[in-house]
Amino acid sequence: MAKTKLKVGVVGGTGYTGVELLRLLARHPEVELHAVTSREQAGRPVADLFQNLRGCVELKFTPPEPATLAECDAVFFASPNGTAMTMARELLDAGVRVIDLAADFRLKDPEEWRHWYRMEHACPELLAEAVYGLPEINRAALRGARLVANPGCYPTAVQLGFMPLLEAGLIDRGRLIADAKSGVSGAGRKAEVGMLYAEAAENFKAYGVAGHRHWPEIRQGLAAMNPMNSAIGLTFVPHLVPMIRGIHATLYAELLAEHDVDLQSLYEKRYAQEPFVDVMPAGSLPETRSVKGANLCRIALYRPLGQRIVVILSVIDNLVKGAAGQALQNFNIMHGFEEGLGLDEIALLP
Amino acid sequence: MAKTKLKVGVVGGTGYTGVELLRLLARHPEVELHAVTSREQAGRPVADLFQNLRGCVELKFTPPEPATLAECDAVFFASPNGTAMTMARELLDAGVRVIDLAADFRLKDPEEWRHWYRMEHACPELLAEAVYGLPEINRAALRGARLVANPGCYPTAVQLGFMPLLEAGLIDRGRLIADAKSGVSGAGRKAEVGMLYAEAAENFKAYGVAGHRHWPEIRQGLAAMNPMNSAIGLTFVPHLVPMIRGIHATLYAELLAEHDVDLQSLYEKRYAQEPFVDVMPAGSLPETRSVKGANLCRIALYRPLGQRIVVILSVIDNLVKGAAGQALQNFNIMHGFEEGLGLDEIALLP
Amino acid sequence: MAKTKLKVGVVGGTGYTGVELLRLLARHPEVELHAVTSREQAGRPVADLFQNLRGCVELKFTPPEPATLAECDAVFFASPNGTAMTMARELLDAGVRVIDLAADFRLKDPEEWRHWYRMEHACPELLAEAVYGLPEINRAALRGARLVANPGCYPTAVQLGFMPLLEAGLIDRGRLIADAKSGVSGAGRKAEVGMLYAEAAENFKAYGVAGHRHWPEIRQGLAAMNPMNSAIGLTFVPHLVPMIRGIHATLYAELLAEHDVDLQSLYEKRYAQEPFVDVMPAGSLPETRSVKGANLCRIALYRPLGQRIVVILSVIDNLVKGAAGQALQNFNIMHGFEEGLGLDEIALLP
Amino acid sequence: MAKTKLKVGVVGGTGYTGVELLRLLARHPEVELHAVTSREQAGRPVADLFQNLRGCVELKFTPPEPATLAECDAVFFASPNGTAMTMARELLDAGVRVIDLAADFRLKDPEEWRHWYRMEHACPELLAEAVYGLPEINRAALRGARLVANPGCYPTAVQLGFMPLLEAGLIDRGRLIADAKSGVSGAGRKAEVGMLYAEAAENFKAYGVAGHRHWPEIRQGLAAMNPMNSAIGLTFVPHLVPMIRGIHATLYAELLAEHDVDLQSLYEKRYAQEPFVDVMPAGSLPETRSVKGANLCRIALYRPLGQRIVVILSVIDNLVKGAAGQALQNFNIMHGFEEGLGLDEIALLP
Repeated sequence: MAKTKLKVGVVGGTGYTGVELLRLLARHPEVELHAVTSREQAGRPVADLFQNLRGCVELKFTPPEPATLAECDAVFFASPNGTAMTMARELLDAGVRVIDLAADFRLKDPEEWRHWYRMEHACPELLAEAVYGLPEINRAALRGARLVANPGCYPTAVQLGFMPLLEAGLIDRGRLIADAKSGVSGAGRKAEVGMLYAEAAENFKAYGVAGHRHWPEIRQGLAAMNPMNSAIGLTFVPHLVPMIRGIHATLYAELLAEHDVDLQSLYEKRYAQEPFVDVMPAGSLPETRSVKGANLCRIALYRPLGQRIVVILSVIDNLVKGAAGQALQNFNIMHGFEEGLGLDEIALLP
Repeated sequence: MAKTKLKVGVVGGTGYTGVELLRLLARHPEVELHAVTSREQAGRPVADLFQNLRGCVELKFTPPEPATLAECDAVFFASPNGTAMTMARELLDAGVRVIDLAADFRLKDPEEWRHWYRMEHACPELLAEAVYGLPEINRAALRGARLVANPGCYPTAVQLGFMPLLEAGLIDRGRLIADAKSGVSGAGRKAEVGMLYAEAAENFKAYGVAGHRHWPEIRQGLAAMNPMNSAIGLTFVPHLVPMIRGIHATLYAELLAEHDVDLQSLYEKRYAQEPFVDVMPAGSLPETRSVKGANLCRIALYRPLGQRIVVILSVIDNLVKGAAGQALQNFNIMHGFEEGLGLDEIALLP
Repeated sequence: MAKTKLKVGVVGGTGYTGVELLRLLARHPEVELHAVTSREQAGRPVADLFQNLRGCVELKFTPPEPATLAECDAVFFASPNGTAMTMARELLDAGVRVIDLAADFRLKDPEEWRHWYRMEHACPELLAEAVYGLPEINRAALRGARLVANPGCYPTAVQLGFMPLLEAGLIDRGRLIADAKSGVSGAGRKAEVGMLYAEAAENFKAYGVAGHRHWPEIRQGLAAMNPMNSAIGLTFVPHLVPMIRGIHATLYAELLAEHDVDLQSLYEKRYAQEPFVDVMPAGSLPETRSVKGANLCRIALYRPLGQRIVVILSVIDNLVKGAAGQALQNFNIMHGFEEGLGLDEIALLP
Repeated sequence: MAKTKLKVGVVGGTGYTGVELLRLLARHPEVELHAVTSREQAGRPVADLFQNLRGCVELKFTPPEPATLAECDAVFFASPNGTAMTMARELLDAGVRVIDLAADFRLKDPEEWRHWYRMEHACPELLAEAVYGLPEINRAALRGARLVANPGCYPTAVQLGFMPLLEAGLIDRGRLIADAKSGVSGAGRKAEVGMLYAEAAENFKAYGVAGHRHWPEIRQGLAAMNPMNSAIGLTFVPHLVPMIRGIHATLYAELLAEHDVDLQSLYEKRYAQEPFVDVMPAGSLPETRSVKGANLCRIALYRPLGQRIVVILSVIDNLVKGAAGQALQNFNIMHGFEEGLGLDEIALLP
């Protein structure tokens, strides 16, 4: 008897995380696409909006009907912040597993959520159940999870970069600096003057310096990385890079004392069993293009000129390991599939 | 008993067609990479030069030893023009199938080859046997072929674009214009000032206007497309686009008379069975990014303002359908594999 | 007694032609900026919207009040199509000279205007008076003109490219092809998904193939270039290039007969006295970046492989010679200033 | 009697700082270009190599003959490191003023120079006389100077960013972090695979993390900014941005104590009289494109979330305020011209 594939729905399929998710799902051997929703594009073939999906995705966009989504085994929310929280309860009750690629279930504290996202949380009672979907930390909790909060793109790159040092208690937790750079697809597929080619090309700038929504998410994650739990002092400055995909986080931490610890070996051991984290050889310079289209975080670390400052370089594709790929990795873990199923794509270079 | 994979060699694995071929071969289920050669990089891990291949290709570059290559079932030449012709005879004699991604076996006339490539041909006696690897024309001849000349990137886009009209005898063969635009990876991975980011970015220019090596190749191909065989008059102007991958050929042809022929339907029928040619609906505008990383040619056609001029828009990824992907398609046909094996990748968008 | 500068107004100063015009006007020795209008941005300092103008332009945007504009000696319309025609009459009556960078006064036939711009013309009686501002053709008429229609960007590049051949009657007027490529700033500073960096970068596509508004403008211009006046057959295909500025027109024309005419010399003579047209030496490849920020059209021409087809390459900066720079050149001519005043900027390369 | 212009020579005119210098010098009212040297391109018209200079620079490249250069009033070295030091003595003795845009006279300690540049210094006795050409610090010393060391691009952006805080003694000198990002033209116009468009576009990476030559230069400059002179601890990480021009330095410093000092006002006062430093209003985000082609440094500062870390954002065009423009500013000061002569260009945006 033929094995049945899982029925999968995608809510909000018209953005960049949406089309990337569809690209990956279309080739996943255990997945059958059941619905791709968009209020605005309802009735239009998905492959008409995204030429690259011609011949691969036959569905049309449908309005986000709860009844249709309730027929799915799993639903991905690639929608704006504040969408998943209004539908999650109903879907979970219908036995559907939910993976939210937006921010609704990332922060554990609903007050903090309200502060940063300027909305009342619609289902704060689900926050405790939601598993933060960074497999390198929460793999056990993800197995069988019903509700997963897929991490933000910056938080993925920054947390994976700092994690081994924080877990080992080697650095000053009050003096962490994350200077992060992202390609423009991180801003989504919205018509905004600032994201026009003629505005963003041949230009580099910081943004959100006074305070960015990923800051509390990163801080929450870093704080949980060590039992001793002294306060995290984190400065986070994101920048916009004239490229489509990729995040490069340059992380600065101060060693607590002169250690003999071999940091390179610390990282290599920590990530030895991780299929999607690549600690590069000492002296390497990870390039964002080396992960373009691939579900990977590549990391290198330095102690420049023998000083007390450790510099960690951490790169991901914001749409893959920073969004759709990690969501699929979580999906695989939740359902007991091989973790890398449908995620074997090699980065496109050049 | 486990089925044995085919041993495959790649000569000249340090260029862009080389790394693209390796990306595809690394995931091909019937292929075992046996050797990747480079005189200059011999001894260095391939994945050290191309970060994207870390964890996927374990080989080191080796010098191009005939003995090692003779152990292969098939050898791809991703080397400069003039390389394959010096090794093909020996490999064929050893029972190795040869696919040349360079120009050595593309022109049937050795005199013409000498004129355009400024070298004496090393094995003119093989030119007759070599099959020009455009599957949409030569599929039958490719089955079981020993020696395949993989088409140039521009010639692939231009020939597929003009073919249905020429085969149907509808256009003036003496007035063909191909205005073609290519991303910079078409120039290869050579240290040249003109290809620096600071020279090629934010710039657009024509080149090779007085005469380009792909002109005789295209003309030869077009000339063979119709028995009546009146002389082909072709003007071909290539341009450099500030992007990495992609070719867009804008083709102009003059209808011989006022026909009632439905051109859209002519193209759809001609390519209905072709897995890697996509005739888009009337009114479409094919984008090069819709085939980025994918083995596809997408085509649309127009008669602007009802005039006698037909405009055909034809796009490919120069490194995939224009080089490595088509080479793998030919490899599959030569060996009797399913034609799309290892070529199911969906274009990366955005 | 100090000489008085001319008071100049700019209507619609928030777009790309607007900011470019302000950049040039701010350094023009005979100009005093009197008003820069924008309904939406009224009250905001111009230099707050355009960081590059900090310290150079002190004005705030004001609403487009006729009274304020009537105080000017000259008013530039850098506004959307259909704006200038509603205000021109009033300004002219007040003695203000008007230069429209949009399309309102480009087409001589109000019917044709309605067909292509889908609006009724508001002052068809002014169309006869309006001078088409291509100085290389209409310099005499521009002297003292009250109302100038600044040419479109594509029409500037295409007309200057074909002009010498058409004037000399050497080519088949029924078989003209203009394959034109433009940077994205040509689409203006409007929030549109298709113009986002993540959509336009690393991509190349044609657009408007079925019919583009610059087609009737170009045809009207070409038709006027020769007394014999046989019908112009023009195929015009514009393309979008992933770069901010620049137009490259690749023009194809068929020689009427085998001539002995030295085409290079024909072009050099035709443009010998033109300060802003540069006929490059035979064999040159004009690059769009060679005119970035400069009021120049550079041209080269070829007869590839000795065939009957002439290929002309014509490049401009769409925002300068294709818009703001040409407008200022017209302004200078209208007012009897030295034609190049304030236009001496050298292109920024790289 | 007509005033005589100064004769100026440029050694090494084939690189990006060279062409930028020529663009500026060609419009400088007090300058007559006397010689532009290049061993390799000798005999070729400068405007043949750099299309943008057609019609503006009539000279041909000449070999770097001391006799010709000695006829100049001033000579700019836009040559590789190690060139100026071999010719400076002779030129100074001939009464020629020398401005070196390379690194030969930047470091005061010849030992340190040897360590970082791996050459013996050819004229260490001139190091004391050489004035470090950052006008915002050394304006007085520059007046009448014979020999000027033009600062590096990163050092300009970083020093101007930290200066007010260091001078005021408000920050921990041992914990300075400079995370700097540069466009690719900073690497020069050399044929290198890593700088090809297909390598550098759509990519972001750090480089020189283990130690970069601008580190000692920055440290030397910062150390001199305050009498108390406790040791500078500086971590400097440069990155490569896929754009042609522009540097964005993101600087991190820790306030020594909770101050009431108004940092915004501190910066505004410090730079109030500086024509080429623009302290932007609180909350601004300086963009590199806002200084493209202009001799300006724009600065903004933040204390994110009220923490002890100050974040300074400092942008320049690496080829202008970071090289050729600053050299011309120094030239003006040295010769007693108005400091901004020939430097009034407004940044090109978009």
